[in-house]
Amino acid sequence: MNVSFPKNLLSEHIALLERVIPSRSPNPLYTHLGLALSPGTLVLFGSNGEVDLEVRLPADVNGQGSFLVPAQPFFQLVRSLPGDLVELRLGAELELASGLFRTRLSLAPTEGYPELFFPSFEGPSAPYPLQASLGVEDLFRTLHHVRYAASNEEYRAIFRGVQLEFSETGVRAVASDGYRLALYDLARPQPFQKKVVVPARSVDEVVRVLRSVGAGEVALALGQGTLGLALRRDGEGLLRMAVRLMEGEFPDYERVIPKEFSLRATLEVEPFREALRRVSVLADRQNHRVDLFFQEGKVLLSAEGDYGKGQEELPVHLEGAPLAVAYNARYLLEALGPLSGQAGLLLSGPTSPSLVRPVGEEPGYQAVVVPLRV
Amino acid sequence: MNVSFPKNLLSEHIALLERVIPSRSPNPLYTHLGLALSPGTLVLFGSNGEVDLEVRLPADVNGQGSFLVPAQPFFQLVRSLPGDLVELRLGAELELASGLFRTRLSLAPTEGYPELFFPSFEGPSAPYPLQASLGVEDLFRTLHHVRYAASNEEYRAIFRGVQLEFSETGVRAVASDGYRLALYDLARPQPFQKKVVVPARSVDEVVRVLRSVGAGEVALALGQGTLGLALRRDGEGLLRMAVRLMEGEFPDYERVIPKEFSLRATLEVEPFREALRRVSVLADRQNHRVDLFFQEGKVLLSAEGDYGKGQEELPVHLEGAPLAVAYNARYLLEALGPLSGQAGLLLSGPTSPSLVRPVGEEPGYQAVVVPLRV
Repeated sequence: MNVSFPKNLLSEHIALLERVIPSRSPNPLYTHLGLALSPGTLVLFGSNGEVDLEVRLPADVNGQGSFLVPAQPFFQLVRSLPGDLVELRLGAELELASGLFRTRLSLAPTEGYPELFFPSFEGPSAPYPLQASLGVEDLFRTLHHVRYAASNEEYRAIFRGVQLEFSETGVRAVASDGYRLALYDLARPQPFQKKVVVPARSVDEVVRVLRSVGAGEVALALGQGTLGLALRRDGEGLLRMAVRLMEGEFPDYERVIPKEFSLRATLEVEPFREALRRVSVLADRQNHRVDLFFQEGKVLLSAEGDYGKGQEELPVHLEGAPLAVAYNARYLLEALGPLSGQAGLLLSGPTSPSLVRPVGEEPGYQAVVVPLRV
Repeated sequence: MNVSFPKNLLSEHIALLERVIPSRSPNPLYTHLGLALSPGTLVLFGSNGEVDLEVRLPADVNGQGSFLVPAQPFFQLVRSLPGDLVELRLGAELELASGLFRTRLSLAPTEGYPELFFPSFEGPSAPYPLQASLGVEDLFRTLHHVRYAASNEEYRAIFRGVQLEFSETGVRAVASDGYRLALYDLARPQPFQKKVVVPARSVDEVVRVLRSVGAGEVALALGQGTLGLALRRDGEGLLRMAVRLMEGEFPDYERVIPKEFSLRATLEVEPFREALRRVSVLADRQNHRVDLFFQEGKVLLSAEGDYGKGQEELPVHLEGAPLAVAYNARYLLEALGPLSGQAGLLLSGPTSPSLVRPVGEEPGYQAVVVPLRV
């Protein structure tokens, strides 16, 4: 059986699979790229055991069947083929021809390759009884706002994931490492209630896929221990993912989110971020401490460490009483990371958690940063 | 004493020093950036023990003296200063001000910092009795053409350097790892005869400096165990380097350069390189073997390894008898690396060294590649 399609179409589509399919794996089958042929469609698929991905592209197909080709040489070749068209002939081997270049690649037997279960583009299916429908950009924004706050530590493993909460008020993403917390509320009411935790590294792959697709709809489906995604644009199915979930859920975090504040500071995010970066160059290299002294219309940033001292002053709009507070500059910078324009920094004292959030829009994003003890 | 100058001028100039000055060193003084003030000029200097570098920039200076500031925070700060102007005040500490930002950095005592000897911009000096004058682009081209062929192995340490040969016929650069060899002859006759070997890693720094300066003249000076460089543009001294030399010199390599050929192939470099890359994807992963079969007006490239087979055909202009020969594709690709347009591949049999060189110009560059045994 054979299939032909434009080279550019293929090289665009394989970039995402290239990230997922490992170059080495205890299970060598995972180092293979799957090709599934059916009339009019070529489906490319791959997995690393944690993340499964399939991409479909229109192609001139003759015959039908599933094949596993060694992913690394296939990807390398596709990137550099001389012709505009690629022709594949699949049998005992894969024969690939493009321009004056010809190659024969050995195939792996498909027995033993794990069966991949993806959600349906059409709606809830047997392996995925719960399904939410969101915009691609909405889901991207939701995950992207909180991902940074997830933990890298083995300790309290659950914090190495991002929690997704589905409820009648919408979809919330939460991440924390126990020292700071980020959450994003997307106001898209869902007909079911459920909390799941997605490994942060798999969130990175999901975010990458969403960014590359850019626009369209995504069906977010929940199955046994698995989060499924099916992405469509203009009504046409583009790609599907399945991501293994973590066991357990976050401890109650609501109580660390401060609700009352003695000082509300409104800052221009960009100049504040730059000043924080500059001043923190001088900060202690262990705790990255930067002192903020909020007073009448301005904030004085200062830091001191082995190299010396630095300070800078910025204008700020304040409601409330002057206050001195200190933060780990990295945590504060990361909390400001997803923001632009103006940000609100809401404080209730030098030892109580502070809240960072955007100004002048529905909150959506909230980040809790705990001050350093002065 | 104090000095002020535009921020952009400083950040342009420190990039090269940033590469040389180590962030950690057994001698902590090396992690410092030197500032030498004299009327009208600020000289920045640094060293890692192997490569010394000084950069001079015009500045509004009040006073004179030499100071050592911690390089890492200084570089980080300079990149992100808020103002257009930077003001430094030097005394017991360095005070830096720019816009609303102020910092005080501690200084290290200059005692104990090694004295750096650079060649003079004016001509031979006591520590550098021999001096050659070249164009910046000429020296860049000379070093850049051969650097790739230097060895990374501990074995036969001398091959981890690039040999520079000064003579009445010009300046030659040679590099080899014992399996292949590259040389470049620059036809700039010199009034002295001398061979020196520069560590390949220091050559990388020299090449980087030459590329960043782009044009002008460079005095290449030889002192005791040291190669010095002084770069000028439009008659004005820009920067100076001193590089520690290796001991010893290359064994006689002239005898491995083939002089007679049974086949001369003329190829378009770019398509040949691309075909080699594609076909070599299928090559054995140990020896990267690609077979070349030269015959009547074409060459057939083929390779075979664990993944399968690949082949491609290219048109070629031949003088001589058909020949089959095999190379390590990486070595052949690297030998073609500095070339564009047309290249000549000169062969004298499937087991004798081959020569790669440009076509239609004074040779200058020659690369010897030894075929794999068939």
